[in-house]
Amino acid sequence: MALISEHIESDTRERILEVAERLFRQIGYQKTTVGDIAKELRMSPANVYRFFESKKAIHQAVARDLMGEVELEARRIVAQPGPARERFRSLLTTVNRMNTERYVGDSKLHEMVEIAMQEDWDVCVVHIECIASIIGEVIAQGVASGEFEAPDLPLAALCTCTAMLRFFHPQMIAQCATKPGPTIDQMIDFVIAGLSPRH
Amino acid sequence: MALISEHIESDTRERILEVAERLFRQIGYQKTTVGDIAKELRMSPANVYRFFESKKAIHQAVARDLMGEVELEARRIVAQPGPARERFRSLLTTVNRMNTERYVGDSKLHEMVEIAMQEDWDVCVVHIECIASIIGEVIAQGVASGEFEAPDLPLAALCTCTAMLRFFHPQMIAQCATKPGPTIDQMIDFVIAGLSPRH
Repeated sequence: MALISEHIESDTRERILEVAERLFRQIGYQKTTVGDIAKELRMSPANVYRFFESKKAIHQAVARDLMGEVELEARRIVAQPGPARERFRSLLTTVNRMNTERYVGDSKLHEMVEIAMQEDWDVCVVHIECIASIIGEVIAQGVASGEFEAPDLPLAALCTCTAMLRFFHPQMIAQCATKPGPTIDQMIDFVIAGLSPRH
Repeated sequence: MALISEHIESDTRERILEVAERLFRQIGYQKTTVGDIAKELRMSPANVYRFFESKKAIHQAVARDLMGEVELEARRIVAQPGPARERFRSLLTTVNRMNTERYVGDSKLHEMVEIAMQEDWDVCVVHIECIASIIGEVIAQGVASGEFEAPDLPLAALCTCTAMLRFFHPQMIAQCATKPGPTIDQMIDFVIAGLSPRH
């Protein structure tokens, strides 16, 4: 019985997040109320509040899920066989593509990002650190295969993330599209050059 | 006579910009009116409008002056003697320091930057291209001295600017201060590694 009820609980939590994300995309974060979410699920707002203390808590959980999808795909790329350089390029390109799809193409979700940045969420820092550590794994594989040279792995990963800010950061992806700059492939070549063995 | 009147004209223009910048810093861009600027100068708003068609035009001229100071200092560094690597580091550090002082330390001026970014000004693009070309000059000097290797100079300069976005872009300087990342010296080391000869 405990297991079943736990299952139902987590199922309800998931359904709340699915509906919330859909409404955030359709009518925007600001306009969506907890009442709207409850109504869609045919439950009382009080029941929604049993799972999330506030609309902000729902917002953060939705953002966490969206970021989690990027992290999952990144881990999948790292686990693939083949040269580290190719997976390194594929990893950076995928983070750019998924962040662009999620936060830039969708103006309603972009509103969520603006708020997350303004309120300076920990979920963003956790995501940055996760992506950096996954990038660090590929660099480590490249060091092992002799493709890369990186005396300080965590630092090399952070510098890679920082170098890619224009292509990773939702606000920069949107803003820099009209500014002079390299293509993502040219930027990845530049970063790979910095990680390549000196001799 | 013509020369004298031209001199007076340009002098008045400069005084309008000086007063405007001071008021933008003191009471903020939004709160400052063309009337306030005219009053400080003991002239009519109509006279201010003889020089600038709108408050936005004054705003852009003030921003242009602030950016111009950074460009002037950058050119001064490039003209100095010594190893290109040292001037390269000094150049990137100076752009970061001056942008931080101008747009981040000063919350009122940061308001100006936010507006400039939202309205997607050409003055920003012109400034980016100017700083990139100055960075390109130092890289060219490094290539000549054998300190750097860069088959495509303009591209190497753009990649350097892009890699330094966290330390150059006013919004990123403010936002990333609390995010995980390398120090500016560590980032410059990473960029220099990418520009260093392979053999």
